Amino acid sequence: MKLKENERLDDLQIAGLHLIQNPEWFCFGIDAVLLSDFVQLEKQETAVDLGTGNAVVPILVSAKNEFNHITAAEVQPEIAALAKRNISLNNLGEKIKILETDVLDITQHIPRSSADVVFSNPPYFKKGGAIPSSNNQKFIARHETTAEISDFLDISSSILKPGGRLYMIHRPDRLVDIFYHARKIGLEPKLLQMVHPNTKAPANIALIKFSNQRGRELKLAEPLYVYNSDGSYTNKIKSIYNLD
Amino acid sequence: MKLKENERLDDLQIAGLHLIQNPEWFCFGIDAVLLSDFVQLEKQETAVDLGTGNAVVPILVSAKNEFNHITAAEVQPEIAALAKRNISLNNLGEKIKILETDVLDITQHIPRSSADVVFSNPPYFKKGGAIPSSNNQKFIARHETTAEISDFLDISSSILKPGGRLYMIHRPDRLVDIFYHARKIGLEPKLLQMVHPNTKAPANIALIKFSNQRGRELKLAEPLYVYNSDGSYTNKIKSIYNLD
Repeated sequence: MKLKENERLDDLQIAGLHLIQNPEWFCFGIDAVLLSDFVQLEKQETAVDLGTGNAVVPILVSAKNEFNHITAAEVQPEIAALAKRNISLNNLGEKIKILETDVLDITQHIPRSSADVVFSNPPYFKKGGAIPSSNNQKFIARHETTAEISDFLDISSSILKPGGRLYMIHRPDRLVDIFYHARKIGLEPKLLQMVHPNTKAPANIALIKFSNQRGRELKLAEPLYVYNSDGSYTNKIKSIYNLD
Repeated sequence: MKLKENERLDDLQIAGLHLIQNPEWFCFGIDAVLLSDFVQLEKQETAVDLGTGNAVVPILVSAKNEFNHITAAEVQPEIAALAKRNISLNNLGEKIKILETDVLDITQHIPRSSADVVFSNPPYFKKGGAIPSSNNQKFIARHETTAEISDFLDISSSILKPGGRLYMIHRPDRLVDIFYHARKIGLEPKLLQMVHPNTKAPANIALIKFSNQRGRELKLAEPLYVYNSDGSYTNKIKSIYNLD
């Protein structure tokens, strides 16, 4: 596998997996690692990743779960191309398919009420302001340029089977937006795990598991802390990163 | 002030305040203390307490805030009577008025759009099951017998001025119910503080500040932990309880 200009090859430190990244666009961060650890798949299940980027999340998910098949959607052609190379690099072509599409058009490709699981690391920032001419890839990945959080929830509910699960990572300051729209469409938040930089700081990441059209009962998970007071990774984070 | 059968007199350990409680009904717990510390009042402001019980929250609020006036509503006659005796006991009759009413009837007593602040420690548990014949007082205080969480939010929004604030304590497992209904009626959650038994346990109490008809921006506060790993109170909790 040849690297192109600006690309680098990273060892994912699990199951012999590797990832090509282009730091000019973006590199995966802790969010991708946390989401991939939060997702739970069963042997016979099919899943859809909404906004896969360089495909790091489905690749990491594949290391920790048995599953039938994952379809991973990415709207930006050059990033979808990179995602496809990452799937080939890890010999995952039979299990993970990259679909170049806007998530808003996903129902043209995925039948309604067909998926067991959806997972997504959607853009965190609200619409507003012009798209800068430089670094468009990074901007689109981080901002709600076309699809907003309500669209991600609508689309998830539409392609999930009744009782199907959505695993999402987002910012706690969007929790009202997320809970409001999810309840409205019957995509019920069932588990909330807050992630804090350390025990003293407010949560800055929220992991949320939803169940499509099933029940109304939110549970809180144990909080996750990324750093100890001495600045080192906590044991839990080391375990998620496979560093212990 | 004479104590009746089953009553006891407790020193609130702040500003010379005391409280008569009837343990056969219920005694205030950490929730009342946390809510009273979460409420912030300004000198000229009027406030309403929805479901005041023995009036412990407005009495504690009075020790930490200057304010114009608090009206504290309690539906159960015998508990409202106890609340009135607690107000007299602490010479707070000019600042805090106990109003014997169901919160559902509050707009018969408090003009719409008139209050700067509402605070409330509503019943935590959902409707369901019959009301037991014994210990009715405790049951009504803890269960949504007449007013549900959506009613508490509706009533708060109705009596608050635009931009007025609601301070509420509830259980995190009701966050979807609360955020959904609050957003629906424009009573916008602005600050969420999670309270955990300790750093390892999921949050079991949520403190939420809302702003009536103003903006959409949730902030997360630093989490509160009640106990250290050795079982002693954390310094923060000692400070809230005025024990340091």
